[in-house]
Amino acid sequence: MRNVYIAGVGSTTFGKHIAMPIETLAVQAAASAIVEAGIERKEIGALYLGNFISGPLNGKEVLAGIVGSRLGLGNIPCTKVEGACASGGIAFRHAWMAIASGMCDAAIVVGVEKMTHSSTAEVTSALNCAMDNENDGPSGLTFPGLFGLAWRAHAQRYGTTREEVAAVVIKNKANGLLNPLAQMGAELTLEKIVASAMIADPLQMFDCCPASDGAAAIVLCSERLLSKNGQERIKILASAQTSGSPRIADHPDLCSFEATVTAAHKAFELSGLQPEDIDLVELHDCFSIAEIIDSEDLGLVPRGQGGKWAAEGRTNMGGDVVINASGGLLAKGHPVGATGIGQIYEVVQQLRGQHPNQVPNARIGMTHNLGGTGVACTVNILGRE
Amino acid sequence: MRNVYIAGVGSTTFGKHIAMPIETLAVQAAASAIVEAGIERKEIGALYLGNFISGPLNGKEVLAGIVGSRLGLGNIPCTKVEGACASGGIAFRHAWMAIASGMCDAAIVVGVEKMTHSSTAEVTSALNCAMDNENDGPSGLTFPGLFGLAWRAHAQRYGTTREEVAAVVIKNKANGLLNPLAQMGAELTLEKIVASAMIADPLQMFDCCPASDGAAAIVLCSERLLSKNGQERIKILASAQTSGSPRIADHPDLCSFEATVTAAHKAFELSGLQPEDIDLVELHDCFSIAEIIDSEDLGLVPRGQGGKWAAEGRTNMGGDVVINASGGLLAKGHPVGATGIGQIYEVVQQLRGQHPNQVPNARIGMTHNLGGTGVACTVNILGRE
Repeated sequence: MRNVYIAGVGSTTFGKHIAMPIETLAVQAAASAIVEAGIERKEIGALYLGNFISGPLNGKEVLAGIVGSRLGLGNIPCTKVEGACASGGIAFRHAWMAIASGMCDAAIVVGVEKMTHSSTAEVTSALNCAMDNENDGPSGLTFPGLFGLAWRAHAQRYGTTREEVAAVVIKNKANGLLNPLAQMGAELTLEKIVASAMIADPLQMFDCCPASDGAAAIVLCSERLLSKNGQERIKILASAQTSGSPRIADHPDLCSFEATVTAAHKAFELSGLQPEDIDLVELHDCFSIAEIIDSEDLGLVPRGQGGKWAAEGRTNMGGDVVINASGGLLAKGHPVGATGIGQIYEVVQQLRGQHPNQVPNARIGMTHNLGGTGVACTVNILGRE
Repeated sequence: MRNVYIAGVGSTTFGKHIAMPIETLAVQAAASAIVEAGIERKEIGALYLGNFISGPLNGKEVLAGIVGSRLGLGNIPCTKVEGACASGGIAFRHAWMAIASGMCDAAIVVGVEKMTHSSTAEVTSALNCAMDNENDGPSGLTFPGLFGLAWRAHAQRYGTTREEVAAVVIKNKANGLLNPLAQMGAELTLEKIVASAMIADPLQMFDCCPASDGAAAIVLCSERLLSKNGQERIKILASAQTSGSPRIADHPDLCSFEATVTAAHKAFELSGLQPEDIDLVELHDCFSIAEIIDSEDLGLVPRGQGGKWAAEGRTNMGGDVVINASGGLLAKGHPVGATGIGQIYEVVQQLRGQHPNQVPNARIGMTHNLGGTGVACTVNILGRE
């Protein structure tokens, strides 16, 4: 396999873009990434697009071909991939594969979602397409319900407290305030969090990421096409994709997602790195408790200590490992298909030393994108050469 | 790139499977393919699933992960790809890439769709997700409308007649009668065809493929895993994927699909073969006129002669090139995401000499899968070694 580099990145803001057609969001992010990459369009040999629920919410499919055509990329293969909330991460891995395997020297990946024009009922129903509805549907569980159960299990086994979980929310919402792309940064306190509406006990409103519109894009390339435009050389050190049981009742443990554990293991194996080498991670905090579980599953925090580390500031700026300096899904937003690409956008800006909430001297960053009930996962490790 | 072989195939019948959950259809086809392949499940390193509109019609996404889990394939990457009616073909190409690139030694691809439980209005609306609705939506065109226009253009330029187009229908419906997997084989005459309901002038009912449920699956492998179970060695000689304009008004010519022309060109280039080398082709006859256009775009029939060749029996069994011995989409059915995989299933049976409508001594077969308004296309060439 050949080395693969980041050539350019682009992103819309995450938030409400009600008047923008979904493909326009995607084209905006992608065009920015192409311009930044300084690579001629004719060099781009493949397009991957990550999207989850444009069919149900926008009545639009074949978005990969539509976006490729709008970008003027010619007759190249344009492929949409879907893996629920991990759609973006899976799309990224395929763009990486296209170059690593020698199929082409440059590829573009775009992640996009448009949700905020729909009603809460429509969004909830569409998001539930990521459940194993044949088996879990009769239980009536939605995603807040699942993560509420996970929180209860984590609290019972490890003694994780409301204060510890709230520390995740306070940190990410504060980080989001510093990120101009973020939808919902906020200055929060424990009091404000516990006063917010109950969603799925014990999850309250501020424990849940918002519905979002947005797009992010990355141009990847082989060493031959790497621009000499003075940008830092950002190399993809590992790209791992795994799956796990879609059925909640089949999860051996609600305090852990097997897909994350196996993806992290594989990413460390591929890169030859250890958890201690990771300076920062953008991980999949769709709910506050998810950040705690993810940080343990990734091996970045000792098992059962995710809540304590958050409360002690060890996952904050200047801590042992910086988690979600961007604000994460909780504050930056969660335009589902765009999230996995947006995470890479954030890590690239960190490794370039250009992030508005910069981790000092960041050299190695990780992204973690989790789909559905843990049915799909991607973990990437990127490094500054 | 390494050589890639067909290890095993499986398929449900195409037709109405109203009581079967969509994932059960997929698992049934996939489990058959795995058993036939004689490869241990732990050897399978990737799953690709082609599906188009399970979100809108079944309220189910992440089907790749759900099917992989049901099959007991462990934590391997499971990826759904979507490219409208070419979803199956695109999924197949990615399974091929996974092995050709050395990422794994065996991969499975499944195509599936479930449509017949939905109303005609729901199906039409879902299928129209494959249009460029921002641009072409205001025209009110559906797919029968587009292919009706294409027919008129072809008739005007090349003098293609109603009788010639009907010859395609009569041939494919008769072939379908011999295929136990087919949904709608029939003994038809020109009189019966012209007496059928008008759908989108000049397209009548028998000129249109039905809505269908069904699944098909292929296990692909490297030479190392090729079973010595006495099956013919079927090698993938070329796998090409292209895109074309989604916007109908941007098509330079309604008598041709650029995505098909470029995909065929690439497939011949990759394989070093010529159109004359192709013994049989399974091509994308979503409408009768589509078969005529496709046969010309693929270079199998001289430009403008598609209707005449059909009427003269030159695309029938025993003709110059056998088109859609399976019955094609018109008679076998069109469970959208399954179609591209079902075509490969048919060609493999032909190359093994085991097809119920066998082309004598078939050595080289082609498949052609076209998505949307020509926005995505795949062409594969398979050969018996």
